[in-house]
Amino acid sequence: MTLLALSRAECFERLADNHLGRVAITVDDIPRVFPVNYAIHGDSIIFRSDAGTKFDAACRGARVSFEIDDANPTYHTGWSVVATGRLELVTDETELHVLQHAAVRPWTHLGRYFLRIRVIEVTGRRIAIQPGDRK
Amino acid sequence: MTLLALSRAECFERLADNHLGRVAITVDDIPRVFPVNYAIHGDSIIFRSDAGTKFDAACRGARVSFEIDDANPTYHTGWSVVATGRLELVTDETELHVLQHAAVRPWTHLGRYFLRIRVIEVTGRRIAIQPGDRK
Repeated sequence: MTLLALSRAECFERLADNHLGRVAITVDDIPRVFPVNYAIHGDSIIFRSDAGTKFDAACRGARVSFEIDDANPTYHTGWSVVATGRLELVTDETELHVLQHAAVRPWTHLGRYFLRIRVIEVTGRRIAIQPGDRK
Repeated sequence: MTLLALSRAECFERLADNHLGRVAITVDDIPRVFPVNYAIHGDSIIFRSDAGTKFDAACRGARVSFEIDDANPTYHTGWSVVATGRLELVTDETELHVLQHAAVRPWTHLGRYFLRIRVIEVTGRRIAIQPGDRK
């Protein structure tokens, strides 16, 4: 098996095609992971949240990571995309109006606040099976 | 929709039934996320790695998080389990022999080292749709 890097465009294509990802936020030196439903809006990852760890991290502009992946265990193929960026609270009224009409599908319920990860860096890789590979 | 907490036993059942999870490790205050194939061995999460970020974190006994989830977007159902614990390098020869025969299916390749997350805390939740719920 070979690991192939995905281009930035390929990473954003996969981000746009999926709706469930995981946000990692460091709190007191411990990384915490939260599954969220999200949508891509420009170069940002958008999701909703109520007050709590994610909201607090957005208020302090924390640097976070965001991950999506998919795997096919039968064929030993898969891919993953990891983005890092600043988490922010969206407060601009015009922008909020636009986001409220975007397809942000909620994991559980809508959540009061719109949060955005402004993507700084995104990397992705996929596993390719080569003709000569043995299992 | 309602969020229901999973018991510790239910969390470990789901951990045992799955093979792909994500490890979050904080490096220079930024949480990093790595998809890994894993197996459960006692109360530990076991995966393999070569030298790099995960190996370095294991050598310093970093506190990490580990996440698995599953979602059905059509029915708006899903669940997630998040464990936190210390990441360690497995060095005991007897234990290594046992692990080499455990079903740790690799994400890409086997990886030279066996790493273990000694689970300190595990929480899980699932989404249940109630009869009166509207979409």
